[in-house]
Amino acid sequence: MSGTLYGVGLGPGDPDLITLKAARLIQAARVVAYPTLAGGTSFARSIAAGLIAPQAREIVMDVPMTPERAPAQTAYDLGATAIRAALDAGEDVVVLCEGDPFFYGSFMYLFARLKADYRVEIIPGVSSITACAAAAALPLVARNEVLTVIPGPLPDSELRARISGSDSVAIMKVGRHLPKIRAVIDALGLTAQAHYIARATNAGEVVLPLAKAPDTAPYFSMILIVKGADPWL
Amino acid sequence: MSGTLYGVGLGPGDPDLITLKAARLIQAARVVAYPTLAGGTSFARSIAAGLIAPQAREIVMDVPMTPERAPAQTAYDLGATAIRAALDAGEDVVVLCEGDPFFYGSFMYLFARLKADYRVEIIPGVSSITACAAAAALPLVARNEVLTVIPGPLPDSELRARISGSDSVAIMKVGRHLPKIRAVIDALGLTAQAHYIARATNAGEVVLPLAKAPDTAPYFSMILIVKGADPWL
Ligand SMILES: C[S@@+](CC[C@H](N)C(=O)[O-])C[C@H]1O[C@@H](n2cnc3c(N)ncnc32)[C@H](O)[C@@H]1O
Ligand SMILES: C[S@@+](CC[C@H](N)C(=O)[O-])C[C@H]1O[C@@H](n2cnc3c(N)ncnc32)[C@H](O)[C@@H]1O
Repeated sequence: MSGTLYGVGLGPGDPDLITLKAARLIQAARVVAYPTLAGGTSFARSIAAGLIAPQAREIVMDVPMTPERAPAQTAYDLGATAIRAALDAGEDVVVLCEGDPFFYGSFMYLFARLKADYRVEIIPGVSSITACAAAAALPLVARNEVLTVIPGPLPDSELRARISGSDSVAIMKVGRHLPKIRAVIDALGLTAQAHYIARATNAGEVVLPLAKAPDTAPYFSMILIVKGADPWL
Repeated sequence: MSGTLYGVGLGPGDPDLITLKAARLIQAARVVAYPTLAGGTSFARSIAAGLIAPQAREIVMDVPMTPERAPAQTAYDLGATAIRAALDAGEDVVVLCEGDPFFYGSFMYLFARLKADYRVEIIPGVSSITACAAAAALPLVARNEVLTVIPGPLPDSELRARISGSDSVAIMKVGRHLPKIRAVIDALGLTAQAHYIARATNAGEVVLPLAKAPDTAPYFSMILIVKGADPWL
């Protein structure tokens, strides 16, 4: 019998925000797998570090950060092949996923390659969106409000339309796109309702009004816009 | 010194999806607070039941489900007054919140009433959106895709525009609005990409293609639409 593939959400970074189920699966895992960005350290692994058994085998996927997709696809192909070998040998494999596995997570690329052939279980995790809202003490959506989640790399015309058309907005993958995003929000007159959050729940967490955000943002940063003016009462 | 107010996310229902931090706070709590819907049982309390100390004091807010807002507001006023008394006496108060506290959660009404006067800490939780995606084995958003979260009670013209304009869509609070929502999705030709999920991670979980969903849906149900045709490779 082949093993089971577990896509395990770890939450936004504070190991204390791992779920009981994820913690148990990681502690029991004999094989764990995770991506590293371009040979650097793995954020996912660092979140789970305290739970990984010393004797666990680690399958590391070195994912290059290039504009073309092919090099990353090759990295996931190699990772999937190594995971297949473990599953075929009857081992379960726990893939470590920052935040939630199915919310802009790289686990989806492994899932696409392996779902037809193996039992797969997804353990949802706390996503960066609600972690950022909590860090900023910012109620995100209530009642019949609409929330739009937008990747920062989109062109500014699209950002503009999406931001103006929603009650609350979360802009992901801010990084080097911050000046462009900021210009769109300024032009829409929404700067006073916009919040910048970097590395939520991690060492070096930053929470600032967008107007006070630095010019260069790390990859792990987000902008939240909440238009409802204290509609909570 | 007054106590601290904790807004504690419990995740979508499976007690195993509570975070380590939330579990610790609940186990240590001398005062917990939670809403019940119209005198019924409390879903939030049932998720945390195994962690609440037998000697903990429980502040129960009986929130009537009426179209007018005033009766619910009165319930939150009463709850906030009871919580104030505990905080003023130096006790911490742990408010139990289904899913995430700031994501369509009733904790926001207590937060609005108490944030000016007390130390408040929010513990984010696994939201129903990613829990439903995991239950349906459905990758939700990847790369530069946009996700729109829409409450089902909105009028059908607005549902139609929002659903057609987004890559992925989560429709919350489905319940008795299911026939209206289904008609909109059918008219847009998106039924084959639509999934119905009820009571994710709870006893009685249901995951079905929208075409096979029953005509009456419980309050704890959601529709997910993912248009990206296996864009994961
Ligand atoms: C590839 S996505 C992964 C999202 C993750 N799967 C989740 O559920 O949150 C990476 C983006 O998530 C956001 N992000 C993740 N963790 C974060 C954190 N701790 N603080 C702020 N933003 C974060 C940033 O916008 C970052 O660019
Ligand atoms: C008032 S909102 C609360 C959302 C919650 N705070 C969260 O973070 O998911 C209630 C709605 O959430 C969705 N929901 C919550 N738990 C769910 C579950 N276990 N399965 C399916 N939908 C759920 C349903 O759409 C329901 O109508």
